[in-house]
Amino acid sequence: MNDTPATALPPTDRTRVRRVAENARYDRATLHAIIDAAYLCHVAFADDKGTHCIPTACWREGEHLYIHGSNGGRLIKWLGKGIDACVTITHLDGLVLARSAFNHSMNYRSAMVYGRFEPVADKHASLAALMDHLAVGRQAEIRAGNDKEFAATTVMRIALDEAACKVRSGPPVDDEEDMQHPVWAGVLPLVQVRGAPVVDPLNTAATPGYVQAWADTARAA
Amino acid sequence: MNDTPATALPPTDRTRVRRVAENARYDRATLHAIIDAAYLCHVAFADDKGTHCIPTACWREGEHLYIHGSNGGRLIKWLGKGIDACVTITHLDGLVLARSAFNHSMNYRSAMVYGRFEPVADKHASLAALMDHLAVGRQAEIRAGNDKEFAATTVMRIALDEAACKVRSGPPVDDEEDMQHPVWAGVLPLVQVRGAPVVDPLNTAATPGYVQAWADTARAA
Repeated sequence: MNDTPATALPPTDRTRVRRVAENARYDRATLHAIIDAAYLCHVAFADDKGTHCIPTACWREGEHLYIHGSNGGRLIKWLGKGIDACVTITHLDGLVLARSAFNHSMNYRSAMVYGRFEPVADKHASLAALMDHLAVGRQAEIRAGNDKEFAATTVMRIALDEAACKVRSGPPVDDEEDMQHPVWAGVLPLVQVRGAPVVDPLNTAATPGYVQAWADTARAA
Repeated sequence: MNDTPATALPPTDRTRVRRVAENARYDRATLHAIIDAAYLCHVAFADDKGTHCIPTACWREGEHLYIHGSNGGRLIKWLGKGIDACVTITHLDGLVLARSAFNHSMNYRSAMVYGRFEPVADKHASLAALMDHLAVGRQAEIRAGNDKEFAATTVMRIALDEAACKVRSGPPVDDEEDMQHPVWAGVLPLVQVRGAPVVDPLNTAATPGYVQAWADTARAA
């Protein structure tokens, strides 16, 4: 890894997009944006019981994607062996209703990262970065992890070296001969929005700025 | 497969939830609800190039989860060999802000299905079911698939036999000794909502009922 990685992610045999290749993106800016917009990823790996697809929280620091978990869990236990993994993040942005059945699609932003996870030595710094990803400023307010909690937790990361994104946006694309077919065409958007914060019934603390900011940008339920 | 499967999904070595086991759900009603609320799933499988995690559209018919794709795509090509797969759907419902760092969590509904995909003979009926999942009533309006399009498309399904769900909801759960720590505690909800339909600039058709219904339930952007 260089400190200043190339802007482009050279496609490999695994990451070169073949289906609808014009939707492929191999630049780090797109990859970073897709990861940073996500709270969770799906991690695929194979162990002695088969192939698994496990959702887990994720965050990015520089050119790595991070996850964490309980030492004893299947995910951490097996990824810790240095086995191949694939991490995928998908944001669904809408249903694309075309004139022909065949050209129906979805608008989305997805990222796939291939590689092997490695354990992170400085768990304190990385878990603080996770907290920052959830709520900027909260790390200074919470009851920090104690030795027992840190000892029970593993933080792992995968390099953003072998990765590709796929992005579709915009209206349906129909064949010329279908354009006069009398059916509505367009996009039905889907958006992940914030809901109004739900305070714990036993909460006694004042509302911090990041919760107020969440409330200010929340949509009515 | 029975026509009237048991209500419960007996946990296997792969599906028995060990971490936070009280969040596990092994009933078909929960499984069906999680699948039916989804437009896409993540499919994990291993081929000669490694382990993959691929997002793809999904829908449910009875006790099977369905996907479709291009015959030549990696997903369809390899699943068609009858290899082990794991299908995961995750709905993120919120960030759970606890008093201690360690007890932070997320609210979510997730489903994992293990097994092998099988090809579906009656593609016409199943792709009509997909269209129904996207927009009820649209199948009768669109330009239906032609022989060439159907020939290029494979529909596959996986039985909902070996599956488990995990669901977390509600406020944070802190240790007793942390309850007086002076930090805001509660949930920051996340919700997938509908955005206002975006009509294709070249659309000439009237707005159908399902698009109007989408508009009526959409939130302001």
